[in-house]
Amino acid sequence: MEPTIGTVAAVGSGVIGRSWARVFVRAGCRVRLWDGVPGQVGRALAWLDETLAAERAFGFIGEAEALAQRALATGHATLAEALDGVGYVQESTTERLPVKQALFVELDRLAPPGVILASSTSALDMTEIAAGLPAAHRCVVAHPVNPPHVIPAVEIVPGAATSAETVERAAAFQRSVGQTPVVMNFYLDGFLLNRMQMALFREAIHLVECGAADLEAVEAVIRDGLGLRWALMGQFATANSNADDGLRQYFARYGESIRRIMGDLGPTPPLDAAQIDRLAAATDALTGDVPLELWQRWRDRQIQRISALKRADSPAGPTA
Amino acid sequence: MEPTIGTVAAVGSGVIGRSWARVFVRAGCRVRLWDGVPGQVGRALAWLDETLAAERAFGFIGEAEALAQRALATGHATLAEALDGVGYVQESTTERLPVKQALFVELDRLAPPGVILASSTSALDMTEIAAGLPAAHRCVVAHPVNPPHVIPAVEIVPGAATSAETVERAAAFQRSVGQTPVVMNFYLDGFLLNRMQMALFREAIHLVECGAADLEAVEAVIRDGLGLRWALMGQFATANSNADDGLRQYFARYGESIRRIMGDLGPTPPLDAAQIDRLAAATDALTGDVPLELWQRWRDRQIQRISALKRADSPAGPTA
Repeated sequence: MEPTIGTVAAVGSGVIGRSWARVFVRAGCRVRLWDGVPGQVGRALAWLDETLAAERAFGFIGEAEALAQRALATGHATLAEALDGVGYVQESTTERLPVKQALFVELDRLAPPGVILASSTSALDMTEIAAGLPAAHRCVVAHPVNPPHVIPAVEIVPGAATSAETVERAAAFQRSVGQTPVVMNFYLDGFLLNRMQMALFREAIHLVECGAADLEAVEAVIRDGLGLRWALMGQFATANSNADDGLRQYFARYGESIRRIMGDLGPTPPLDAAQIDRLAAATDALTGDVPLELWQRWRDRQIQRISALKRADSPAGPTA
Repeated sequence: MEPTIGTVAAVGSGVIGRSWARVFVRAGCRVRLWDGVPGQVGRALAWLDETLAAERAFGFIGEAEALAQRALATGHATLAEALDGVGYVQESTTERLPVKQALFVELDRLAPPGVILASSTSALDMTEIAAGLPAAHRCVVAHPVNPPHVIPAVEIVPGAATSAETVERAAAFQRSVGQTPVVMNFYLDGFLLNRMQMALFREAIHLVECGAADLEAVEAVIRDGLGLRWALMGQFATANSNADDGLRQYFARYGESIRRIMGDLGPTPPLDAAQIDRLAAATDALTGDVPLELWQRWRDRQIQRISALKRADSPAGPTA
């Protein structure tokens, strides 16, 4: 990997910010961490140590490389210091519009001219975050999937004032650090990822709540069914590969029942306290005695292995 | 694996039926294949040879085991002969109600008493297929995901007359041959799998058609984002692992925006000729010069590798 930008700032060093730091040092970028909460940067660097140790234990990385990568991350006491000499800023702080607005005023004031100011927000509109900012053209959303150091997709979403050049440079940088940039043409509530996730979640909740099956069954259909294909191909490619003559034949054959099922999907759930209690109790039963943290670690190492499988073999055959 | 039933019939030997034969012989069952289309059984057995050769080439199976498994599959010229002495019937013929109804009359007449008659139908209701049949209690849907020999989930859907014992025995048999049975309490159009798949597909089509992003971007969000988690956990477990205190905290934190996004999802697409042409052209561009058959083979071998990863390591730690 050869990053298009050599030094970057991770502004906000919580769960998402620290994972971004892992992405950037892996690609060979220097990362300057800052956080408004005292002690947070220290915890992020400690997490980086643990993560690198785990990656070594699982054989994902060698010792010399782990040490070299760790040396690229530094903590900084002030925002001004963290932004000194950087070529890209990834902001990952609280998801509250006034907080982000105030922070972006500071970022715009302190960051070197021309540097991209990217936000990890999963919900806010850059049009509003950067409203009235002198350099709104260089502000853009770069929304990762949790956690970015194991999941490559990053949604690049422009605000009304974001320049095409900013979108292109942000996407090129993300690609250069090994992520998969996904460019939206304009803001939509939930972007692409959460809209599709919530479309599936809405129906999953409906199927449990209408009594068609228990929660464990609905989970198994994804985990041991749909998800195995979706780890490799999106839904268009999945449908395309499910008929020997591709998507046209698929729609010709199943179009009528597809429209009927789409028109019969369940409603938006109330998500009131009683419903949340029911769903959470069934999910707790599914999680069992294994602590959530072990589930998260397992998820992360397994996704890294799946990504390695995808790198090693393509439809055209094994890759070099 | 120790199958609960030693000899089974695969009635219908097309793409789904031949894949079922692969599932059954892998578990050590004798499989008796039949098809109403002349030559189809021969093609299914030839496919089984090719598939076993490919699995040997990729190191999924040894030579002696491949030979032993292959010897368990036999082709039969008449339905009566194929059903002789079997303990389970998996029907995978044309998805047309009158065809299935007529066939189930024959299956009920010819199969040994007490034997489960399972249909691979992805859309039909067993209440209708088995309507008026003397032994409707032993008829049940066992809907696989394409292709069943690499994807474990199987939807078990009772008709109105299906006995609880039939559901239990069908699920136990599927589990004993290495599949993941998923039991529905009653029939719903699209079952669980296609309802969730179509919920996601509906929104994916909407996002492309409203111009929010191009088709390749929407695909990448699934393939390099959501799908990596869904290969390991369903959506409830995914949400549960995305907040350190689990699903209750997840809904408490994001419930409002979740309901807002769910309420804002796109409509059912027309899927008229013009829309199908647009979506198919963009999908063709995605598929590129690599023939669809190579995409299918790649999908199948990669899913087998992912499944091996899942067997080898669980949240509690590496498994024996």
